[in-house]
Amino acid sequence: MLEYDGTDFSGWQVQLGKRTVQGEVARAVQRVTGERVVVHGASRTDAGVHAEGQVAHLRTRTRIGCDRLVHALNAHLPPDVVVLRIDEVPEGFHAQYHATGKTYRYRLLERPVRSALRRNRAYLVRTPLDLERMRASAARLTGLRDFRAFCTEARTRGRTERRIDRLDVRREGDEMVIEVSGSGFLYNMVRTIVGTLIWAGIGKLSPDDVSAILESKDRRRAGPVVPPQGLTLVEVRYGDGPGPASP
Amino acid sequence: MLEYDGTDFSGWQVQLGKRTVQGEVARAVQRVTGERVVVHGASRTDAGVHAEGQVAHLRTRTRIGCDRLVHALNAHLPPDVVVLRIDEVPEGFHAQYHATGKTYRYRLLERPVRSALRRNRAYLVRTPLDLERMRASAARLTGLRDFRAFCTEARTRGRTERRIDRLDVRREGDEMVIEVSGSGFLYNMVRTIVGTLIWAGIGKLSPDDVSAILESKDRRRAGPVVPPQGLTLVEVRYGDGPGPASP
Repeated sequence: MLEYDGTDFSGWQVQLGKRTVQGEVARAVQRVTGERVVVHGASRTDAGVHAEGQVAHLRTRTRIGCDRLVHALNAHLPPDVVVLRIDEVPEGFHAQYHATGKTYRYRLLERPVRSALRRNRAYLVRTPLDLERMRASAARLTGLRDFRAFCTEARTRGRTERRIDRLDVRREGDEMVIEVSGSGFLYNMVRTIVGTLIWAGIGKLSPDDVSAILESKDRRRAGPVVPPQGLTLVEVRYGDGPGPASP
Repeated sequence: MLEYDGTDFSGWQVQLGKRTVQGEVARAVQRVTGERVVVHGASRTDAGVHAEGQVAHLRTRTRIGCDRLVHALNAHLPPDVVVLRIDEVPEGFHAQYHATGKTYRYRLLERPVRSALRRNRAYLVRTPLDLERMRASAARLTGLRDFRAFCTEARTRGRTERRIDRLDVRREGDEMVIEVSGSGFLYNMVRTIVGTLIWAGIGKLSPDDVSAILESKDRRRAGPVVPPQGLTLVEVRYGDGPGPASP
């Protein structure tokens, strides 16, 4: 399990000439074990997106125990990425394909001026937001649905049905926190849901409008993709499959 | 009132060739009003220390109103410092000399591995801390006391009596949060108190030991000065004096 500050990364996935989390982890493993490995992440988070509980798997022949390996890797990782825990998993386990659920959190800063301390952690919305309207709109998006209207189609292949188990909106001080748990998420789906809930919060959309957007399957009708810095991958869950226990 | 992320600043106070908060604010004022001003801060925070509610005063002839000035200055300030509010004050008001109280917060991260997301916001203590022992020790430091044992003497002139009104220790998730309010603080006093409370928390000092250190007035007996990144100036208060209302 990994934690990282996405601010200075070009996202999770290795790209030539770019600094990525996947690349930094693979490099640390090579320094510690001497092996070239491929690190498979449960979620390919975008540039600027953070993680408190990313899960990744890799195959190694090292004899170093899990706890010692945590500390050895952390000694070779840069300050903005850290291994929280390592577990041995059964042969064939896959961090992405065997994940049964994920939770993401998005932080909106609801105040007239920007924040210096939270500039890389939350997205500023200067217009006051209507919490109850956002909650009523969020309720229209839970359950098993076709989220075609809430994904960036250029990067979406295959089926667009997903199940949202929980979509909470709450105030914490001067922040509006949106937390979503589901079976899986299409490309840009979480950030498009948040953009749509902001439109509901400023009165541009009603809960009925949100239902109509979902049914239309038309991406052009949903809200904007909000910036990455407000988003954190909180948790990846593994159910009955062969994965590790839920972190 | 100012908020800043102290990570990339050499502290509050202007130093030749260094990036400081005072320097950045003065530069923004000059760009907006054309005037060269001296910005007087209530607290000369060290490099790496953050502020949610620093107060500073300056003298200007500008006709720009307070609210417009907030936005004009923020447009010229870098992302890691922001003006939250501006008030007009009576002639003779001084942000430092007229302050009647200040509140600081220090965050300890209490877990086995470092944090990527909070690396510049909290100080890692890998040893489990005894909350009740820390609270009992903290209680020995409240009231009007001579804090000579809790300051860095090289930078301390004059009287060393200060009044601590509140010194709270609480757990928040995997953090131990120490919040202190008082009439004023000697150089490194907050960070030395935190270092001493950590020694209490790991069992190295008893509450009676903490009382004895206070009475000894001997700096060599108190705990270490903990690193700056865990410290935040939360609030500066102005009582009956000529200052602005408490932020």
